[in-house]
Amino acid sequence: MKFTAHINVMPLKELLDPQGKAVNNSLHNLGLGQVQDVRIGKHIVLKLDAHNADEAKTMAETACKKLLANQVMEGFEFTITEG
Amino acid sequence: MKFTAHINVMPLKELLDPQGKAVNNSLHNLGLGQVQDVRIGKHIVLKLDAHNADEAKTMAETACKKLLANQVMEGFEFTITEG
Repeated sequence: MKFTAHINVMPLKELLDPQGKAVNNSLHNLGLGQVQDVRIGKHIVLKLDAHNADEAKTMAETACKKLLANQVMEGFEFTITEG
Repeated sequence: MKFTAHINVMPLKELLDPQGKAVNNSLHNLGLGQVQDVRIGKHIVLKLDAHNADEAKTMAETACKKLLANQVMEGFEFTITEG
């Protein structure tokens, strides 16, 4: 069966996010002063072949831990959908 | 009221995603050969002050169009949540 993993890898809350800070300033300069805070991470879409959703979940978690997220600085979360 | 916009900016389907291709190869080398395709974009979380969800939605869309997404190469989607 085919599954899709939608993964978000974000800088940990405890850490500064200089890219987010820069975008926040730019949005203020563009007239969007109501923006309070910006954090920027990665969105990764994996297409997987797996026997069931649990197997797909395990594969997505392995991919995050081994390659996609640097767990010293980043956290990850994901959802699995069919197809 | 406070709202949060969860924005995904992804390379358009019609375009090659070399970063995704490289990650796909790396996942195969790590033993995750069941991964078929990888696409990598940005996940951006905006904290906003707005009077209602519609205003928050307009602000998020403006931010995407003016700064966050390069619409020649990227598409965006977002959801708004309260708080």
